[in-house]
Amino acid sequence: MKVFEIDFKFDEPFALECGRILPFLQLRCTIYGQLNHDKSNAVLVFHALTGSSKIAEWWSEILGDGKGLDTSRFAFVCVNYIGSCYGSTGADFFAFLGKNNKKEFAPVTVRDIVRSQVCLIEHLGIKRFAAVIGGSVGGMCALQFAADYPEFTEKCVAIGATPLSAFGLALNHIQRRALDIENDVRIARQIATLSYKSPELFDARFGRKPNRNGENPHEDFDSRFDVAGYLDYQGEIFTTRFDADSYRIITKAMDLFDLTDEEISRIKAKVSLVGISSDWLFPSKDVENLAEKFKANGVKTEYIEFVSTDGHDAFLSDTAQMSAILRKVVNGEW
Amino acid sequence: MKVFEIDFKFDEPFALECGRILPFLQLRCTIYGQLNHDKSNAVLVFHALTGSSKIAEWWSEILGDGKGLDTSRFAFVCVNYIGSCYGSTGADFFAFLGKNNKKEFAPVTVRDIVRSQVCLIEHLGIKRFAAVIGGSVGGMCALQFAADYPEFTEKCVAIGATPLSAFGLALNHIQRRALDIENDVRIARQIATLSYKSPELFDARFGRKPNRNGENPHEDFDSRFDVAGYLDYQGEIFTTRFDADSYRIITKAMDLFDLTDEEISRIKAKVSLVGISSDWLFPSKDVENLAEKFKANGVKTEYIEFVSTDGHDAFLSDTAQMSAILRKVVNGEW
Repeated sequence: MKVFEIDFKFDEPFALECGRILPFLQLRCTIYGQLNHDKSNAVLVFHALTGSSKIAEWWSEILGDGKGLDTSRFAFVCVNYIGSCYGSTGADFFAFLGKNNKKEFAPVTVRDIVRSQVCLIEHLGIKRFAAVIGGSVGGMCALQFAADYPEFTEKCVAIGATPLSAFGLALNHIQRRALDIENDVRIARQIATLSYKSPELFDARFGRKPNRNGENPHEDFDSRFDVAGYLDYQGEIFTTRFDADSYRIITKAMDLFDLTDEEISRIKAKVSLVGISSDWLFPSKDVENLAEKFKANGVKTEYIEFVSTDGHDAFLSDTAQMSAILRKVVNGEW
Repeated sequence: MKVFEIDFKFDEPFALECGRILPFLQLRCTIYGQLNHDKSNAVLVFHALTGSSKIAEWWSEILGDGKGLDTSRFAFVCVNYIGSCYGSTGADFFAFLGKNNKKEFAPVTVRDIVRSQVCLIEHLGIKRFAAVIGGSVGGMCALQFAADYPEFTEKCVAIGATPLSAFGLALNHIQRRALDIENDVRIARQIATLSYKSPELFDARFGRKPNRNGENPHEDFDSRFDVAGYLDYQGEIFTTRFDADSYRIITKAMDLFDLTDEEISRIKAKVSLVGISSDWLFPSKDVENLAEKFKANGVKTEYIEFVSTDGHDAFLSDTAQMSAILRKVVNGEW
């Protein structure tokens, strides 16, 4: 599998939807597989909230020669989001001093993220993707791409992605409030981890077992159950790899994502909406309802139920099923 | 409706299950209605995590002459939990200096809470309750009472209460971690509020509407959706009425609650386990499974499904149904 890494600087002002202007655009892109001579075999993959352009790091079992995302046939392009912390224009560029000299951020939208990538796509000479694909906020990006650039893709696959419900908005809000307390992503990550998993999975994996390091929660106040030790660990390792301001910016972009009927009706791609049966952050029922809305707006849409007890995370953890679904949609007749 | 308030000081050492000893016990108790001459018409009500002994403040539409909890027939006794902040021995009495002079707490158990109340019950001369009743941690207390004092009650009603699942343990842990950051109950309360409600309720009440005070989340970064404004408000008002250490102690007691088959088999009361259909903190399926476990251990048990979209909070918010269920169990043939 060939891998190309590109750091791209677009030295012109980039206007955000909110009106603020970035002086330049920095984008990090990774391409897996070989673009053919007319660049018609490209597939655009959007990463999740805390992902990077390195698809192979989070979909290692799905991406490769002969795999679900088959690098012997397609070239998979992934661009790090603006506002993220993996090589593209970082959070600092969206900060400004607002009222009372308080640090504020320009709200970045999913539309901004997608449009920034189109600059790079044009530079690469790709005219049209075989498919655009993403899970979670990546699915929002895929849908926004299909709506804003209807001629630019043949297919669109969005997994576990809809406009956020009030519950989803609440979860993001509490996470940002937790960041505000000490500018540390630990608690936010713990809340997020819970939202990515399912009660069934946690019952099977942890139940009411004491922490595996030997602590006994009955013995003293600070001794933990196994699930608590797990969450602390998830919070801890996350502080070493993600930036609090990037977390603020991308969760806010998720909050703002929505599609009007008018936007949906512009879509020309064939759309596959994948709902994960045990997902409570983006309930499969909401994905199914979105599919109905797409159909009602004249979009050729299929709803796929991804049956898994892994919760929202299934698109990353249940690689066999995710791979099978992507292989079918990307390679297949749909 | 007659109301009696009692502040009781039990001037002897009280040993906690963990081995630590309180030098004395302070208990605040409220009684609604009139105890009859042989005190056979008493009903013991256990409050929820942040409640007080004043049942009328949180079950105002359920408690009263002729109501679901009928004060013209019964006397309803409620005692504030040790470790709480509404008149009984407060959190400070459970604190001690541990390793490295770090403030630690003695873990209080649901069994400790229940046993502290038995001291007061004996003082009042009540030999046997017509029923013990509680929702959430109050339901845990009711079940523990029935197991530890099998001769002391005829009926036991536990609403939305089971040993916490891994998901429930995770929610409590994250809330205590949030308290650790700034010793403020705000974030913990926001997380708890989410766990007490249901996605359906939030969709109906808030959806994706902007904050009702006129903020527009699309306009600038810190402007909120309606659900976020609501959660901030819930966090804010909670800081004026609840203590962080009490929150730590009682959530930890919830974590530790569990009942072995041996404990269950000691129960002689007729037990009503009420599962709330939209509860995701104590899923109704878990309550139903607990009912099966009770039956398997020879306890006369009925499972009641409380159909509501209000989530766990339904036992406080859906007063018409809660009242009807309690009336039937307490007054009725069961």
